[in-house]
Amino acid sequence: MHRPRRLPLLLILLGLLPAVARALLPPPRFPGPHARPRPRAGVGDGVGGGYEFETRYFRQRLDHFSFSGEEEFFQQRYLVGRAGGWAGPGGPIFFYCGNEGDIAWFAANSGLVWEAAPRFASLVVFAEHRYYGESMPFGSKDKAYNNSRSMAYLTAEQALADYAVLLTDLKRNLSSESSPVVLFGGSYGGMLAAWMRLKYPHIAVGALASSAPILQFEDIVPDTIFYDLVSNDFKRESLSCFQTIKDSWKELDEQGNGQDGLLKLSKTFHLCQTLNTTGALSDWLSSAYSYLAMVDYPMPSEFLMPLPASPIKEVCTNIDKQPEGSSILERIYAGVNIYYNYTGTVDCFDLDDDPHGMGGWDWQACTEMVMPMSSSEGLSMFPPDEFDYELYADDCVKNFGVRPRPRWISTEFGGHNISSVLEKFGSNIIFFNGLLDPWSGGGVLKNISESVVAIVAPLGAHHIDLRPATKEDPDWLVSLRESELEIISGWLSDHYRARGGALFQRATNKDSAAS
Amino acid sequence: MHRPRRLPLLLILLGLLPAVARALLPPPRFPGPHARPRPRAGVGDGVGGGYEFETRYFRQRLDHFSFSGEEEFFQQRYLVGRAGGWAGPGGPIFFYCGNEGDIAWFAANSGLVWEAAPRFASLVVFAEHRYYGESMPFGSKDKAYNNSRSMAYLTAEQALADYAVLLTDLKRNLSSESSPVVLFGGSYGGMLAAWMRLKYPHIAVGALASSAPILQFEDIVPDTIFYDLVSNDFKRESLSCFQTIKDSWKELDEQGNGQDGLLKLSKTFHLCQTLNTTGALSDWLSSAYSYLAMVDYPMPSEFLMPLPASPIKEVCTNIDKQPEGSSILERIYAGVNIYYNYTGTVDCFDLDDDPHGMGGWDWQACTEMVMPMSSSEGLSMFPPDEFDYELYADDCVKNFGVRPRPRWISTEFGGHNISSVLEKFGSNIIFFNGLLDPWSGGGVLKNISESVVAIVAPLGAHHIDLRPATKEDPDWLVSLRESELEIISGWLSDHYRARGGALFQRATNKDSAAS
Repeated sequence: MHRPRRLPLLLILLGLLPAVARALLPPPRFPGPHARPRPRAGVGDGVGGGYEFETRYFRQRLDHFSFSGEEEFFQQRYLVGRAGGWAGPGGPIFFYCGNEGDIAWFAANSGLVWEAAPRFASLVVFAEHRYYGESMPFGSKDKAYNNSRSMAYLTAEQALADYAVLLTDLKRNLSSESSPVVLFGGSYGGMLAAWMRLKYPHIAVGALASSAPILQFEDIVPDTIFYDLVSNDFKRESLSCFQTIKDSWKELDEQGNGQDGLLKLSKTFHLCQTLNTTGALSDWLSSAYSYLAMVDYPMPSEFLMPLPASPIKEVCTNIDKQPEGSSILERIYAGVNIYYNYTGTVDCFDLDDDPHGMGGWDWQACTEMVMPMSSSEGLSMFPPDEFDYELYADDCVKNFGVRPRPRWISTEFGGHNISSVLEKFGSNIIFFNGLLDPWSGGGVLKNISESVVAIVAPLGAHHIDLRPATKEDPDWLVSLRESELEIISGWLSDHYRARGGALFQRATNKDSAAS
Repeated sequence: MHRPRRLPLLLILLGLLPAVARALLPPPRFPGPHARPRPRAGVGDGVGGGYEFETRYFRQRLDHFSFSGEEEFFQQRYLVGRAGGWAGPGGPIFFYCGNEGDIAWFAANSGLVWEAAPRFASLVVFAEHRYYGESMPFGSKDKAYNNSRSMAYLTAEQALADYAVLLTDLKRNLSSESSPVVLFGGSYGGMLAAWMRLKYPHIAVGALASSAPILQFEDIVPDTIFYDLVSNDFKRESLSCFQTIKDSWKELDEQGNGQDGLLKLSKTFHLCQTLNTTGALSDWLSSAYSYLAMVDYPMPSEFLMPLPASPIKEVCTNIDKQPEGSSILERIYAGVNIYYNYTGTVDCFDLDDDPHGMGGWDWQACTEMVMPMSSSEGLSMFPPDEFDYELYADDCVKNFGVRPRPRWISTEFGGHNISSVLEKFGSNIIFFNGLLDPWSGGGVLKNISESVVAIVAPLGAHHIDLRPATKEDPDWLVSLRESELEIISGWLSDHYRARGGALFQRATNKDSAAS
């Protein structure tokens, strides 16, 4: 029996499908979350998720690390919260390190930053990551994504330098050089926040790195951990659901190889176009499970897709409750329908879409963000799959004309033996992880020192702490957010105390914050 | 009276003349230290300053921070000490961060690294800085230095990444990933060592940054401090010497503007070629004073030039002791003759030479290493001179086709408020400074935390601690070197203790070191 290779998914937030998958399979198609209003991202003023901001642009250098005399620049977008509540020059700045997507989308989904700011009379800034959203070198996405030479500067190091330059300039323009900056970021943005605190301690006093899988490189964590954690999220809801999914891959292959198999599969799964191979469908299903694990929040959310509270429970309930005699694939369809079509508005599914403009992640995965992922026979509900670096690298060459540097991230940012390295080096980083989140497998889950600490939520999913507060928030979530803010408050106190107390009182005076 | 602009000297170690001086004046000419044997720097095995090493080459990436798919590589030279005394895999590695010159020259002049290694059973590695010595991109110095595009990657950040990649690869090849690396460096190399510890704590456990003027940027220290310190070194030896030098500039200008003035000056100073302007002579004299202050060691040395012990005392004695009636310029000549011709073998002086292949510093000074330097009317014996950034930048454009980024170094590496930034961030850095060294004005002179410490030698000059031990070493020097090694020993103990004690005993067992 021929089984199409299912390749490891390099999902970061919405990394969608990895370059390798793109290389070997027809482009996978995802239905976009059309039912969800997309946060406004225009020039000028805006409102995202109810948070009011001004949209600004900064002339940013394309390559910080060379001096060719032929420098290129681009317009980097950043959002600045209405400054009414800011303490003014010297007051704190909360800075979100944008990740692989439109910054207005992250702004709308990172309510904690906005909601905590008034308490500290902080200015709020969300900076967009280069090559995403509107922050395109060479004037347009088409030109920026044209070829390997135009994409060459889409790296984490360049993005961090962008943030460093932007912050330095911003503070100077505000006559606020002494302002303490607190970095925030979720997922890849959390990695950037942690790395930025480590690399630029003179620019920021601390970082809340939420669901930042900074250890998901090389052999630092087992390469099976991601899919094992996804699988576990299903298993804990329902063993039969887990088993149905585990059994479905073989079923899918067998059907696909039968007469008119691909046509039948396309019908079973209500696809808009007939499949060319089962691989695209496998990936579509795998992605849904992985995303479900990431956003398995205990309240309804619209981050990746409009979803009910505890969506995995819903999916599994749907899989399990189908009438006796339902086939495995009918059950599977009923399950993923929760993820891809909770609003019930989708007539048929397109397996390719990139609603958040995140295609650049494929490039990043093919250059420095090489996160080996395998699926083990034992704990995983996914088909067994071993990470094959050579194949991966060859596909990167084929697709992007670049060969990855799989060891670069740990050379540049570390990762091995992180506890002993940072035990007496570095300070003021919070690593938040929710254990339902499969990315927690690559996260820092233990305190490293007194001020490089881990906050772990056994029932939390992907950067749930950053999400806007809701009335449905469970107590543990309210309380862990409070812990985070208390730690951040300590960083700010230390900063102001070291510079004399007056400004601190001003900055933390709630009356002045309300003015 | 026309006074040719004397422009600030950007001397780092042997940075010689700044680009701006090159731009405005005929190329200044320095007599090379021909009497001094140049350390051998061939392929294969070598001996430098009596230290035995193997010469190796590493295929290094030209641009670490982009992925264009058209990567360039170059051969980076590094020297590895005879490994006989090394503890073996897991044993310590002493790594010298090469600066702006031939690495064999630094190896010969950094005896401390070699002499301390056996005590810790350390492997010794001296890595050459890209674009210096033999470590030339594009195959040759001519090609590497061809234009701004070929020089684009001569930056500190790229050099640090070189060291990070080299060390990571070296450790892996030695099956010695767990080895603690101690960084060493003097002057610009000391800046690199400190920055490397800060940026790559996962690669090195600590750094001895000797005479590293990491604060000589922007407005972090007064821009007059360098020349004030040089002047002070002369004043403390002899007030009349100081005054003679202070008076000489006017004299020099007046003579230069008189009939046959330049010819007469050229004769007075025994120049091989007749001057076109007094500026080149002023620079030649200024350089001598500045270098004398840097190498005002209490024992004879041959680092920059063959010199007697306490050379400023000798220079001033010569200036002061000339027969009554001697002109100011005759006295000046008698003084600098000590610096440029102590061996008495020079017949006439050439004002341009670059014996250590350091021309690349001009480029670095015109890109990121913008160190503002002025000469004040008050404390300085140099002619008053205000740093004019616009002029400086325009000359960089004219000469190299690049515009400097004067704020980049402090954005990338910090510097402002270093004490409060590093008080609770970072660890294991020794900043050594000798107060006779004018570069100490840009150095860290106070302890920042328990393990980011300053060692200050009131009677020390430029990285005297790193120099080979001699019988003439004063007690304070012997004792401060011992303090440095005790601190380093503590870093190594901490490292091994954290990993279990066995290897530490092995590494510090003097018997095994002797094997």
